[in-house]
Amino acid sequence: MDSRDFSIHSDIKNVKIYDDFWNSITELVRKEVIPYQYLALSDKIDGAEKSYCIENFKKAALLKNDKAREKYPVDKWEYTDDNCPKESFHGWVFQDSDAYKWIEAVGYSLINHPDDELKRKAKEYIDIICDAQLDNGYLDTLYIINDNDKAFTNLRDHHELYCFGHLVEGAISFFRATGDRKLLDTACRFADLICDTFGENKIKGYPGHEIAELALFKLYKATGRKEYLKAAEFFINERGKRPYYFDIERNSHSIGENYHYNQAHREPRYQTDAVGHAVRGVYLYSAMADISKETNDDELNSACHSIWDNITEKKLYITGGIGSTVDGEAFSYDYDLPNDLAYCESCASIGLIFFAQRMSEAEINSQYGDVIERALYNTVLSGMAEDGKAFFYVNPLEVLPEASHRDSRKRHIKPVRQKWFSCACCPPNLARLLSSLNEYIYTENDNTIFVNQYLGSRLESKHCQLNLKSQYLENGNISIKIDNCNRPFNLALRIPQWCDNFSISKEYQIKNGYAFIQINVDCDISIDFEIKPRLVKCSNRVRSNVDRAAVMRGPMVYCLEEKDNGSDLQMLVIDKNTDFKTVGEYILAKGKRELPDSNLYSNYMESEYNNCTLKFIPYYRWGNRGENEMSVYVRI
Amino acid sequence: MDSRDFSIHSDIKNVKIYDDFWNSITELVRKEVIPYQYLALSDKIDGAEKSYCIENFKKAALLKNDKAREKYPVDKWEYTDDNCPKESFHGWVFQDSDAYKWIEAVGYSLINHPDDELKRKAKEYIDIICDAQLDNGYLDTLYIINDNDKAFTNLRDHHELYCFGHLVEGAISFFRATGDRKLLDTACRFADLICDTFGENKIKGYPGHEIAELALFKLYKATGRKEYLKAAEFFINERGKRPYYFDIERNSHSIGENYHYNQAHREPRYQTDAVGHAVRGVYLYSAMADISKETNDDELNSACHSIWDNITEKKLYITGGIGSTVDGEAFSYDYDLPNDLAYCESCASIGLIFFAQRMSEAEINSQYGDVIERALYNTVLSGMAEDGKAFFYVNPLEVLPEASHRDSRKRHIKPVRQKWFSCACCPPNLARLLSSLNEYIYTENDNTIFVNQYLGSRLESKHCQLNLKSQYLENGNISIKIDNCNRPFNLALRIPQWCDNFSISKEYQIKNGYAFIQINVDCDISIDFEIKPRLVKCSNRVRSNVDRAAVMRGPMVYCLEEKDNGSDLQMLVIDKNTDFKTVGEYILAKGKRELPDSNLYSNYMESEYNNCTLKFIPYYRWGNRGENEMSVYVRI
Repeated sequence: MDSRDFSIHSDIKNVKIYDDFWNSITELVRKEVIPYQYLALSDKIDGAEKSYCIENFKKAALLKNDKAREKYPVDKWEYTDDNCPKESFHGWVFQDSDAYKWIEAVGYSLINHPDDELKRKAKEYIDIICDAQLDNGYLDTLYIINDNDKAFTNLRDHHELYCFGHLVEGAISFFRATGDRKLLDTACRFADLICDTFGENKIKGYPGHEIAELALFKLYKATGRKEYLKAAEFFINERGKRPYYFDIERNSHSIGENYHYNQAHREPRYQTDAVGHAVRGVYLYSAMADISKETNDDELNSACHSIWDNITEKKLYITGGIGSTVDGEAFSYDYDLPNDLAYCESCASIGLIFFAQRMSEAEINSQYGDVIERALYNTVLSGMAEDGKAFFYVNPLEVLPEASHRDSRKRHIKPVRQKWFSCACCPPNLARLLSSLNEYIYTENDNTIFVNQYLGSRLESKHCQLNLKSQYLENGNISIKIDNCNRPFNLALRIPQWCDNFSISKEYQIKNGYAFIQINVDCDISIDFEIKPRLVKCSNRVRSNVDRAAVMRGPMVYCLEEKDNGSDLQMLVIDKNTDFKTVGEYILAKGKRELPDSNLYSNYMESEYNNCTLKFIPYYRWGNRGENEMSVYVRI
Repeated sequence: MDSRDFSIHSDIKNVKIYDDFWNSITELVRKEVIPYQYLALSDKIDGAEKSYCIENFKKAALLKNDKAREKYPVDKWEYTDDNCPKESFHGWVFQDSDAYKWIEAVGYSLINHPDDELKRKAKEYIDIICDAQLDNGYLDTLYIINDNDKAFTNLRDHHELYCFGHLVEGAISFFRATGDRKLLDTACRFADLICDTFGENKIKGYPGHEIAELALFKLYKATGRKEYLKAAEFFINERGKRPYYFDIERNSHSIGENYHYNQAHREPRYQTDAVGHAVRGVYLYSAMADISKETNDDELNSACHSIWDNITEKKLYITGGIGSTVDGEAFSYDYDLPNDLAYCESCASIGLIFFAQRMSEAEINSQYGDVIERALYNTVLSGMAEDGKAFFYVNPLEVLPEASHRDSRKRHIKPVRQKWFSCACCPPNLARLLSSLNEYIYTENDNTIFVNQYLGSRLESKHCQLNLKSQYLENGNISIKIDNCNRPFNLALRIPQWCDNFSISKEYQIKNGYAFIQINVDCDISIDFEIKPRLVKCSNRVRSNVDRAAVMRGPMVYCLEEKDNGSDLQMLVIDKNTDFKTVGEYILAKGKRELPDSNLYSNYMESEYNNCTLKFIPYYRWGNRGENEMSVYVRI
């Protein structure tokens, strides 16, 4: 068996989730996040910062045909009442994308939960959006309102192509859910303009913030139009060529400038390491994986593997977080994974899931599902408060509230989740990811159904109907029922990397981390993954974690909080031979607390300790009880 | 005995140093640093960045009486050929101070080593400086050249009063060394203008960067003129009053502004913690100690003690470094002493020595000498390369060169010393401190000679002539010979805080950390401080140092360097029961090296180790062999 199999795919419409754990979270998204955001986009929430998002679209629709209209500067990142006139565009340069991401989340949600009222609201916004589009297909309200002559003149810093990417993703999601083509047609018209504008003998530029690449690929798959694939390829192949387009567009020579931030330091096909802004990075790598698979581009495929290995072997937090420095929200150097300075943007882990999913569709290897699981159960879940009303952008592994308040180097580390509306990039990204989990459970090809994630669910496949009941988090028990089996096929079950012992009620063969079972007739299969708390060591190449360990149980990383363990978590030590006891959501372990030293410096003596019980809570649950210290790693 | 004794003082002119270790360093300053800096101030070094310092004075002298001269802006921190015309002031706003610090170092050096050529060079610069002074006494070349109407209008950000402070210190040093009054008279004229300008019913401002306070006090002691003491008191008492002067001078309300950076957040007499820019802080605290002693100001004295305790109990690195964050070059919150992000500016430790010296002159307590020793033998010495030609501004406790090059959060951490001329604040500060060590060895009052530092030296006192021979660093042996004893007195020997065992050949009584010996006649005293390598623990309230220890020997902190121990110093572990072996400058200890982990994350297992010998080098010697990893703390 060749592990590369370019016919693997997933289809969100064929899967329904029936899972107590996950449904409680996706219901929070459906009932709290999506409705709240609908109001926020129209500035209908008292006391919240204004979004201006829908207002910009309305403004653009009114102004777009007025040839005599005034022009305003397009030179800022954020346009506020303080720095521009009322008539100007308002908000961040990427404000349009919030509406698109919201529509994308709505689309996924409608597939799972038909809801006429929500559909009506989405169509209301779609009408407003489409009204703003120019006759030539252009659609970015900043430039339409402020100065359309300057469209596409600042690809490096502005986000027209980024907003376009989200428009496409929103349009496809809504079309798939409802069959309504209106937004999709609008997206295609903009895509056509982009194809006419960029390319050989045209503008040889590429997006400063990637996503158009993967969106164009998605649009190609949705419409079959090859020009979109070509445009995506062009953007990827042009990036990083000398002279740099970003220099050409400002008539400058690249003196001291480096384009690692935009992954534009060299051509993507020759890149080997994950560098620069982490979200931009994983969006680019996702598109590279798409295209290398579609076009059998071995160089691009090899770059994807090299970058993947660099991330997962040297730049990945135990929580699935990536991007360890706040400066540029970026990947740092190898093994630089500080706990208390981590950035680990929620969006970056979401993008890592996109990248992993695409890798898993090109190659049979359980590591991709493992990484998706690590990111999903930890950093992604951690991003949202238990009431669905507050969010983390940054997901640190160690928090001291005093440091966040008083140390400018840690100002990005928030000790409690923030209301989502202050700068709305991660919350809607969480909404769209959590509403589309159906996509990540199964993939299939002509002869195999792959079970990648163990969410209770039903798959309607060409091979059979598959019902999966999951007690994955409770006790590791999975039962699968195959009905309507209409032809023999393989069922491939991902064996989670964390699981040392498992049993499967049918004969199986392990290949590339999956247990392959031949299915010929309807049957029941039960799987038992031994799930128990365990101590995990981080490589001693990571300086901050020597002499420390983390507690995990299944895919879940746990952490210590001050509320449960008192302050000065650095004085706690876990017994390396501890038994673990699971009590509700907690894990209890044997440990000791070092008595506080009375002098700042003293001759070394063995420390004194009091025995104590350490109380661990799942990482994704931290910070729901007010500000307090938190630490994933504990001394051992 | 009351430990407070307001008659203790030191006198640099009565002490000569004869000490192999220290003379080799001060000779480096005399033969390398001072001559090099003489050339640098006049821009006579090929290939070096221009200083413009002497050029500014010359420019000011030519222009000062030209009423029709053009004006230039005074709104920048640094004036370069790129941002201002040729005729404007050039360099940093505090450029004048470099000349003054150089003259101060020359003065101290002349006291130790008469040198006619050096004296001639200093007088040459003094003539140039004095020519630039305005008739009213004003002397700051930025404002004289660019726009004198704006003098004293930006006390918060500009450095007129800072340059004035260094002018005074330089003038007093040179006057003491040579009896030449010219610069001292110039300083007094500027001081008189300042007394006329600031005060009740005058401008109620105070310096943004403190030092004028301690300089005015010094000038009061040198001249006996009470108005200088009053001006120093005024500056201290006015600081931090509401409304903030810094707001008044910009017609602004302090919205979101905080003046911790300038220690102006509240009146100094009510301050309890060390905050803000560390150098500014210790200069202010030094002046507070001076004035509280002179005026018996109990509130100010109590503030000094509270701030002192806060520094030494919660904000002091084992190396005597202070100021743990690069942001604002500032003190951080209690126990925030990161090794790899430390700022620990050389100047800040020099200022800490100033503060400690003043505290020791007001109160008999060996802790002040202990802190001077800690700072001097570690951070201060570390500031200069072994060839005297390169300097550290920042003195970290852990260095990974890759991090300095690739991680913007650690860009201030230089893995090797820099040529001193790029921004010349620490090198001349080192020069003046190292040239004036005579001041720190002895203090005396009517009945006691205190030996605070054990540098081989001769003291000419009113009590006797005291010869001290020192093998302090070699084996802890000190021999003291008292000659010409003309009246009974106490000899008080500081017992170093690091020393657990010592013997003294005469009867003594311990009080406040000093061994007091009654001396009636000429005699010899021998002292034996047991000096041996030891393991030191940092309080477990400091998060970065749990499960770690440092190696010290006497006052010296040691460290591991990659050149001696290989890379990945975090994999090294010292045996807590190790014997130590001293070989040349090295200390060898028993340890082990953890084998590198092959996976980023794995189930916890006991690590495997290879035994090895750890090779420690004195901290002040690190970084003299090219870029490499360094760490003070090691796992235990």
